[in-house]
Formats: sequence, C-alpha cells, structure tokens
Amino acid sequence: MKHISSRDNPAVKALVKLAGTAGKRGAPVLLDGVHLCQAWLQHYGPPDRAIFDVDRLSQPDIAALAAAVPDNVSLALDARLMHAVAAVESGQGVAFLVTPPVPALPAQVDETCVLFDRIQDPGNVGTLLRTSAAAGIKRVFLATGTAAAWSPKVLRSGQGAHFALEIHEHADLEALLPRLRVPLVATALDGSRDLFADRLPEQCAWIFGHEGQGVVPALLAAASLKVRIPHDAAAVESLNVGAAAAICLFEQRRQSSARLRR
Amino acid sequence: MKHISSRDNPAVKALVKLAGTAGKRGAPVLLDGVHLCQAWLQHYGPPDRAIFDVDRLSQPDIAALAAAVPDNVSLALDARLMHAVAAVESGQGVAFLVTPPVPALPAQVDETCVLFDRIQDPGNVGTLLRTSAAAGIKRVFLATGTAAAWSPKVLRSGQGAHFALEIHEHADLEALLPRLRVPLVATALDGSRDLFADRLPEQCAWIFGHEGQGVVPALLAAASLKVRIPHDAAAVESLNVGAAAAICLFEQRRQSSARLRR
Repeated sequence: MKHISSRDNPAVKALVKLAGTAGKRGAPVLLDGVHLCQAWLQHYGPPDRAIFDVDRLSQPDIAALAAAVPDNVSLALDARLMHAVAAVESGQGVAFLVTPPVPALPAQVDETCVLFDRIQDPGNVGTLLRTSAAAGIKRVFLATGTAAAWSPKVLRSGQGAHFALEIHEHADLEALLPRLRVPLVATALDGSRDLFADRLPEQCAWIFGHEGQGVVPALLAAASLKVRIPHDAAAVESLNVGAAAAICLFEQRRQSSARLRR
Repeated sequence: MKHISSRDNPAVKALVKLAGTAGKRGAPVLLDGVHLCQAWLQHYGPPDRAIFDVDRLSQPDIAALAAAVPDNVSLALDARLMHAVAAVESGQGVAFLVTPPVPALPAQVDETCVLFDRIQDPGNVGTLLRTSAAAGIKRVFLATGTAAAWSPKVLRSGQGAHFALEIHEHADLEALLPRLRVPLVATALDGSRDLFADRLPEQCAWIFGHEGQGVVPALLAAASLKVRIPHDAAAVESLNVGAAAAICLFEQRRQSSARLRR
C-alpha cells in the first residue's frame, strides 16, 4: 500500500476538496469509520478509494478491511492527513471513497414504500431511513429538496439502513404516482382519519412531508387515504416527522401481524 | 427601554459570557425567538432579562413582547450586538434570559411518566420531550448525563413541549424508584416481550436508554415489564430511541382508547 505523508499529494488534495460536493447527484461520498466501510464492502465490493491511518493498520478490524481492498485503490496516510480529509470525524482510522448506487426506477411499485417529501433535517432523514428498514420496507424515494441520503449526518443516523434499502434520490414524486400499484397514504392534520380507528392497507406508499409545511398540496390531493395520529394538541401542535412515521409504519406492521395471528 | 450600542456594556458582556453555562444546574438560559419568548411569558411571566433588536421593535410580534415585559428588565440592542449574544441564532430580533423552572420532586408518582436514561443527542431529547407531551404525559425525569433540556438544540426540537411538561433534570433514577406507584416498563432487546402482543399497563413509568448502551442494568433489572418492538433485525440492529419511544407511547394510547371504545 502506498504511504503518503504530504498534504500536497494530488490524491489527498482531491479528498480534502470533496467536502463541498457531498449530496450532489452522482458525486462520490466518503464513508467514515469501520462499520460503514465493512457494510459497503459486503454489499457493493471494493470502494473507488480507501484511506487508512498508517499508525492503525495493525489494528485487527482495520487490517481486515485493508486486506479486502485491492492495493491499487488503497492509501496509507499519516494520522494528521487523515484528519485533514473532509468528513473523517470518527477518528476510526479508515474511510472509503465510494459512488453511491443509483437504483433503476421500477416500472411499477407494488410493495410498501416510503416517499420523503423535502424532509430537511439530516437527523430526521437518517432516522426515517432506519425506521423504514426496521419496518421491513425495501424501497424509498427522496424528493429533490430532501437532505442528501449519503451525507455524513444522514449516514450516521441511518445506522446501516442505507444497505438494506433501495434509495431513489432526486425523485420527482408527482411523476412517480402513475407507477404506484399501491394506495398513497399521507399524514395530515386536516381532513384526515384517526390512524388507529381503521384498517390500514396491507401494502401502501407512505408519504411524509417537510418539517414545517407537511406534504405538498398536489401530493396530498393524490392520496387515497389521509391519516392523523390522535395526540394532545393542547400540549404540542404536532409530532416530529420521524416519530410520526415510526408510529404509522409500526401500526401497519402491528395490524398485519394481528391479522396473521387470527 | 434602555438602548445599548456598545459591546463593553456589562449586561451585554454577561449575556455573551453565558454561552458556556447552558445546561448547568440552576444556570440561566437564553430563549431565542418569538415563539419561545411568547410561551415563556404565557407560562412563567416576565423573564430575568429581555433583549430586543432595536431596529425591529416596531414589528408587531416584537412590539407585543416588548409591551408585556417590564421596562427595567428590557434592553434594546444594536443588531450587531444581538448577533454577538450567545445562542441567538434565529435572527428573530428577540431573546429572553430566564431561569428554567425546577419542579419539586413528587412524593409519589402515580401517572404515566417518562424516564430519560442518559440520552445523549439533543435532537433525540427534544423529540422525546415533544412525543411525550403529544402523548398526554405531564412529567419526565432526565437522569444526569442526559442532554440539557433547556439548551438551544433541545428547545428547538422540543417545539414547545417544555411548557407542557414538568421536567425534572439531573434526576437520580434509582433513587426515584421507591416513589413510583406505577410499574416500570423498559425497552430491551433481550428477555423482553413483544410490545404488541400483550396488554400494556394503563399507567406506567417508561424508561428509555442511552443511544448505544440502552437502559443501565440496575434499572433494567428493576423493570416489571421489558418490551421490544418486533422489527426486521436483518436490516438494522435497532430503532432510534426517539422512534422507539414514539411507538411505545402511542401503542399505550391506542390500547387505552380501544378499551374506552368498547
């Protein structure tokens, strides 16, 4: 493995410059830390480039990663150079430069999926990815304007969910509607039904909206079911979008299991 | 109202210095923005001190706040001084310096409450406060080691929940146990029952734990019921604590309403 100790090295310079491009369509991203790199290897194989803290190459988990990556894409960096590289905050001694997968748009969607309508906060997006994966969902669509799925904060709060999901970013949700073979279900405060009062569809496309504005009117109008979570409205106006989504997705799961048990 | 345009003013200096003390027991905190200041006035009356952007005193919502605060605690600051004051990020032109309420520890707890066991992330703490208030809960206990409830990030994600709850910070959760007249219910992956399979207690003390370590063993051992949320464990190891809590609290609410409807 090539060992680099100068910041003027072109490969290092390119990695440092990367900071500004995270989240751009088709732009490479940096996966920071042992867990994320292991998960990437397992699901997608070798990265475009791997960087290792030269002082920690003897550490077993780092050594195992180094052994699994072809030598020609690996670089060993001095510790201070590792820190100079954008987004390497974990201090775990390893990061992968990768190009996130861009799954092909399915001709039709006939299983439960989740539509993210311009959710702004990276923590909310990561939590919602994690909750979706935990609920057994396989496919999510992130409208343009949603926080970038493969950005460091979203990766961190996703806790591995990225590798259990087909993530369609920069999605045009209105253009997606004709492909849906399952009903569109939205959360809304007005004109909606109590989430817990009725039977939810066995499969559906859930849509969760912007933290302040909720789901965009055109998509709300297209929903075949609008639900609200009954709550103490005198205490707080609404629930956090991640909390609301968790309640919805697991209520659907609970109803499914209850039907199976009968 | 006194108008200040010098950063050397002692009151301004004190406000700037405040940045470092947020979250310390008994320390004053700065509420930033129109909504928080309105809520404080409504629930607790005048603040220790109020600062206003002198250029925005004619704006109706700011003017209403200024009229409601005694003149001797109000200061009008030049815009650039407002920005210098710690934690004033909203740019809404108003902030209150307040001393958060310290509710008396109840002799016994006989209603549903939530125990926060060293939850680290301010966003998680704020979301959990918001979800608790939305679920109709009136009292929460935050163990030492939990993110400070009245810090700017927690206030922001709490979205007003702080004013609907009795928030006991720096709580010793083990010392609290003898006061509980309701069963202690914890979420745990091992040795736990399916949340949805059984009838939950009508009233209980929920405990939610540290993002990485979960609930501390001594408290887990004291729980009369341990529940888990059945999820796709091949996809992600666990749920985010805020998502898990939302599912638990609203499942309890759903069961209560279902019983009432019968």
